[in-house]
Amino acid sequence: MRATLLYGVGDVRIEEVPDSRVVEPTDAVVRVTAACICGSDLWPYGSHPAGGAPARMGHEFVGVVDEIGAEVTSVRKGDLVVAPWVFSDGICEYCREGLTTSCTHGGMWGFGDAEGAQAEAIRVPYADGTLVKLPVAADSALVPSLLTLSDVFGTGHHAAVRGGVAPGSSVTVIGDGAVGLLAVLAARRLGAERIVLMGRHRSRTDLGREFGATDVVAARGDEGVAAVRELTAGHGTSVVIEAVGTRAAYDQAVGAVRNGGTISRVGVPQYEEAPVGLGSLFFRNVRLTGGAAPTRAYMADLLPDVLAGTVNPGRVFDVSTDLAGVPAGYRRMADRESLKVLVRPA
Amino acid sequence: MRATLLYGVGDVRIEEVPDSRVVEPTDAVVRVTAACICGSDLWPYGSHPAGGAPARMGHEFVGVVDEIGAEVTSVRKGDLVVAPWVFSDGICEYCREGLTTSCTHGGMWGFGDAEGAQAEAIRVPYADGTLVKLPVAADSALVPSLLTLSDVFGTGHHAAVRGGVAPGSSVTVIGDGAVGLLAVLAARRLGAERIVLMGRHRSRTDLGREFGATDVVAARGDEGVAAVRELTAGHGTSVVIEAVGTRAAYDQAVGAVRNGGTISRVGVPQYEEAPVGLGSLFFRNVRLTGGAAPTRAYMADLLPDVLAGTVNPGRVFDVSTDLAGVPAGYRRMADRESLKVLVRPA
Repeated sequence: MRATLLYGVGDVRIEEVPDSRVVEPTDAVVRVTAACICGSDLWPYGSHPAGGAPARMGHEFVGVVDEIGAEVTSVRKGDLVVAPWVFSDGICEYCREGLTTSCTHGGMWGFGDAEGAQAEAIRVPYADGTLVKLPVAADSALVPSLLTLSDVFGTGHHAAVRGGVAPGSSVTVIGDGAVGLLAVLAARRLGAERIVLMGRHRSRTDLGREFGATDVVAARGDEGVAAVRELTAGHGTSVVIEAVGTRAAYDQAVGAVRNGGTISRVGVPQYEEAPVGLGSLFFRNVRLTGGAAPTRAYMADLLPDVLAGTVNPGRVFDVSTDLAGVPAGYRRMADRESLKVLVRPA
Repeated sequence: MRATLLYGVGDVRIEEVPDSRVVEPTDAVVRVTAACICGSDLWPYGSHPAGGAPARMGHEFVGVVDEIGAEVTSVRKGDLVVAPWVFSDGICEYCREGLTTSCTHGGMWGFGDAEGAQAEAIRVPYADGTLVKLPVAADSALVPSLLTLSDVFGTGHHAAVRGGVAPGSSVTVIGDGAVGLLAVLAARRLGAERIVLMGRHRSRTDLGREFGATDVVAARGDEGVAAVRELTAGHGTSVVIEAVGTRAAYDQAVGAVRNGGTISRVGVPQYEEAPVGLGSLFFRNVRLTGGAAPTRAYMADLLPDVLAGTVNPGRVFDVSTDLAGVPAGYRRMADRESLKVLVRPA
């Protein structure tokens, strides 16, 4: 079968790999019918060391179950399923609490011996804990939106939930990538009244407005912070969702949050240390929250709205391609020509 | 009148200063009957540059109202009152939300033209927003406990509240100073089931046990973290209260907190940057919260329990002195000979 491999910076190749197969009795094999390229794939795309082992890429997918191990009970051959961006056993202490990203047996697609989703098929460990059956056909028009439950919509939702967004909240969202835009949608869905979207790509911020942003701030840094404060009587918003992951975005979040408010991060931090002291967070009683989103735990909550069409997160996909088009898709996303690329391997 | 002045590192003097008087119509003058030395006073005590202006010290007090300005309505001459460690107008947006530390007109005792509480008297700005009347006499045995509402008990309570302590919670408290011990008491009061106190001063941790600590860990650093994890099936506790303020204590908090849990800081951070990235907080979905405690806002909640004697936070005072004994009191606290020094200026 064919799969996507990252060999080095900017070096994405589609190559033949061994067919996926059931190894453990808790495994399933899924034929991938829809996958995608994630903004977070661009971090290794821009940094993967050449010369070492190539990485299997892709951590978001919808597909049809092709084979199940002897102990799998929740899905069967032929089912259409969606998987979260991390697999998890579904039964450990953390999974039962909904923190599937901390699953005792969990792992990330493409790491260790886990396969990647930008491929014709994928072996799914802990299929019962990982996969969620979808009550539609593989060619349903809802598939792009259902695919966002893997990561980007669930991650935007996590940002809003951890930020404490509730009816009437005022929220700033930093970043107009897919996660930022879906954080806008998630915040709106949870009742946020004012949503300031910070982003400079007009086509994206226009979609952000359709998702519920009430204001758009194109400026960055101190100028951007000043603009948010001007919109909020000088105070900033009670919630700031940081959906980029750079130190500059963190600093912007600290500047834009109201005293007593919450910064909720879902952009993968590209820094380890950051200001948390007296002036930045402490005296102002600013909370820092968010993190890797346990999207599997949110599927039951978000799925009905996606199926009912009351939200349409799949609108973040602006390009669709087959597997052969994946390397070009990475280039387009890295160059900010595409917002998010849908991949149809089969 | 006499007041406490800090002239430089370790250089505390009791000197004559101009008598406190009403300046603004919203002021009151309070004759201080009970004040104290705070662990946080030890930071300037160890760092105040010599040669500049001396600092007026003390930010915790109980006293008798001696004079009020024309616009003061909530207290009158002769009332026994307690004040929080910051003054606040009581009517701004932040005060109405209970974040009195962010009051638009607020300030800290001893900064700018604000006087200090380790003195015979003190001018209180915004007396209506700042002071709370106490229904006991100035010589009541409850005064030491009532005095802790100024700062240390209210701050311990803030740590527990922000940490989300609820019935059944598991909590680690880092630090066996007055705030750490009263965070134990506050966590117990809010129903915490397991409270691990990290501290190495036996007499203090013994008091911590009386306040509700179920376990004591004397080890620090990696060894201390390992001990907490051993007590909690390897996971750490859902809440960690950091009541010291050093980077080492922060790192210990990161190590002792359970994935998905909360670090609540009330030790004044002596660092600006700290690890908040992928491995420390982000992937583990650890929240960072806490901050400067709006103790004025907690008085209504805590006062009945103190008056009823169901909690006895005043037990943190192990030494009592008059004003002349204040310099020695600083030395005793800096040398860890005293836990907390009560000052009776009048």
